[in-house]
Amino acid sequence: MTGFPCYDMFDSPTKSSSSHSLGPTQYHDFISSQPFALELGGELPQLTLRYETYGTLLPDKSNAILVPHALSGDHHVAGRYHPDDPKPGWWDGFVGPGKAIDTDRFFVIGINCIGGCRGSTGPLSTDPRTGKPYGGFFPEITLGDIVRAQRLVIRHLGIPRLHAVVGGSMGGMQALLWSADYPDEVGRIAVLAAGLSQSPMAIALNAVSRACVESDPQWRGGHYLPGEGPQTGLAIGRQIAHISYLSSAAFDQKFGRARVPGAQPKDSVYWQVESYLQHQGESFVKRFDANSWLRITRAVDRFDLTSRAAAGRLFRAGGPDVLAIGFSSDWLYPTSELRMVVAAATAAGVNAAYHEVVTDAGHDGFLLPDTGLSVRLRAFLG
Amino acid sequence: MTGFPCYDMFDSPTKSSSSHSLGPTQYHDFISSQPFALELGGELPQLTLRYETYGTLLPDKSNAILVPHALSGDHHVAGRYHPDDPKPGWWDGFVGPGKAIDTDRFFVIGINCIGGCRGSTGPLSTDPRTGKPYGGFFPEITLGDIVRAQRLVIRHLGIPRLHAVVGGSMGGMQALLWSADYPDEVGRIAVLAAGLSQSPMAIALNAVSRACVESDPQWRGGHYLPGEGPQTGLAIGRQIAHISYLSSAAFDQKFGRARVPGAQPKDSVYWQVESYLQHQGESFVKRFDANSWLRITRAVDRFDLTSRAAAGRLFRAGGPDVLAIGFSSDWLYPTSELRMVVAAATAAGVNAAYHEVVTDAGHDGFLLPDTGLSVRLRAFLG
Repeated sequence: MTGFPCYDMFDSPTKSSSSHSLGPTQYHDFISSQPFALELGGELPQLTLRYETYGTLLPDKSNAILVPHALSGDHHVAGRYHPDDPKPGWWDGFVGPGKAIDTDRFFVIGINCIGGCRGSTGPLSTDPRTGKPYGGFFPEITLGDIVRAQRLVIRHLGIPRLHAVVGGSMGGMQALLWSADYPDEVGRIAVLAAGLSQSPMAIALNAVSRACVESDPQWRGGHYLPGEGPQTGLAIGRQIAHISYLSSAAFDQKFGRARVPGAQPKDSVYWQVESYLQHQGESFVKRFDANSWLRITRAVDRFDLTSRAAAGRLFRAGGPDVLAIGFSSDWLYPTSELRMVVAAATAAGVNAAYHEVVTDAGHDGFLLPDTGLSVRLRAFLG
Repeated sequence: MTGFPCYDMFDSPTKSSSSHSLGPTQYHDFISSQPFALELGGELPQLTLRYETYGTLLPDKSNAILVPHALSGDHHVAGRYHPDDPKPGWWDGFVGPGKAIDTDRFFVIGINCIGGCRGSTGPLSTDPRTGKPYGGFFPEITLGDIVRAQRLVIRHLGIPRLHAVVGGSMGGMQALLWSADYPDEVGRIAVLAAGLSQSPMAIALNAVSRACVESDPQWRGGHYLPGEGPQTGLAIGRQIAHISYLSSAAFDQKFGRARVPGAQPKDSVYWQVESYLQHQGESFVKRFDANSWLRITRAVDRFDLTSRAAAGRLFRAGGPDVLAIGFSSDWLYPTSELRMVVAAATAAGVNAAYHEVVTDAGHDGFLLPDTGLSVRLRAFLG
């Protein structure tokens, strides 16, 4: 259920923290019947936003923390829907009673992004104008659109100002956009494993992943039927992405050069790492839509706040405090990018600090329990 | 014609050195009608090895240097076949009159590897037992097989002992195998941008690249017809490999976040880097065979001398001297792997040294002119 299948590569947060997990959680759907204009043109005539909350909102509504998800994540940030769910939400190690984002004190919100495929309006949704799924006709979106749609939920919940936005990877980009676009509506942002823009090499990796999808004969320009679609292409595209989420050390530790028992030299799946990647690809296809993958990776690739930063229009004195958190072995969003976030914020007179997690886990390190990070994040949230 | 299409990303060696390039070069075919037994079983009933030589072999045959090529390279190491060839051989920056590997002093040999598609016996060759191309029936090979086949050419040329073997990437692995398997037949090896084994992450990248090929409906288990074949899959698979040959800094410098003029947000090719990768993939398909790609990447993935090194059976005192050359931004074969080569050689009592090239070019750095490297290599070759 979690959007991050390499949880199981390391000690799962469920092992150490399940006793402190949230009780049964449930999602809600916020529906807006107002047309939602999109940054690149066009509109969504109606909007459904699936969200979840944990903890209790104070009467003065001052304790809300938004946790935007990463590329393949969703609104199910923490806890379990049913006690027998095999896994909790994707950031259960950090969100719950007594945890870094303490649900005994804070009201935590997770929202599935638009363009996704986990309940919010996306390519799988029905276009009310045609009565059919959007599919390949779903418009192009930006992370700015995703954040603007989130804000509708925050308003719906009656929250005038978020205590914090805390996000990793694509979630960290959204935290930066909250700070940039709505500096009066958020008190602080924590940005994990992301930078001021999507780097050209990260674009390249996404581009090849998309090419896998779009070259699959089943893609049909995005106009595939339910249950069909470019499953092979999406599975391979996900494998590429998955490699970029790990590190060479993580591959060494998990697989080494172990072979699949009984595999023959000519077999397509000969190495354990090959088998693992194949499994990751196949699992992903079961829970993710190819058109969503295309829309969201393109939205991430468009993310670029560098010119706003250079022009002094990204951060402003008195705006949200910033905590940037880098992961030492992350080569997709290297620590230099987090340091750049801090430099840009500091130059603008914003309180900003950097924290580095020393880990072999690569980019996915932000999903894994880390005591030092928990302490730092908890202190930052006040 | 060169096996390394990202030459044009940086200053081409042709610009600075074409005036010192070799005159018209030509290749030769060595044909062995003896069956060639393969390490993993089976045999090739007949063997053709295409090779090129530069410079003059001394009467005592003491000045021969073998330059094995990397994954997609070939026997055409330096010079031009015709004065109007747009590009010289793939290592023309290092091989020629007065260059690091000085053809005024040394007799340099390039040999296309078996399993390849540039003239030596490979999947495109005719199987004399059937009269048809091997295609998908071409057997699995190892780098040990490739080196053993090279040795037939060296013997054919009457050379009892090579002055040196100098190779980068897969070529460096072959240099290590020469030292390990034929320590009395080579005086020194220079290993560029390679390690003692193929790392699990490098296997992962090759695995996904192969999955692109094998999932293309045109692959047909390798039994495709000439002119058909998995061109789309091979093109995308090559794009993945190509990313791993560069560095994030190289992507920044070459493309930044520039867009393709006139491209629309929904277009498959929107970013310049996307356009570049697509071009690289399409160019590669025109000069490389998918079955060769599968055979050679699998051979590279099998490369592992670590247990021989651990058992003290890889290097031995009095064996070939070793120069290991790392490239600072190479994340496919990081500098730590080259240092490990030196450590293993030194531990065995072999003269070994490390040289690092500081570059933003990534793994492909070994293909690019570098004065410091040229001086070091020239001194090492004596």
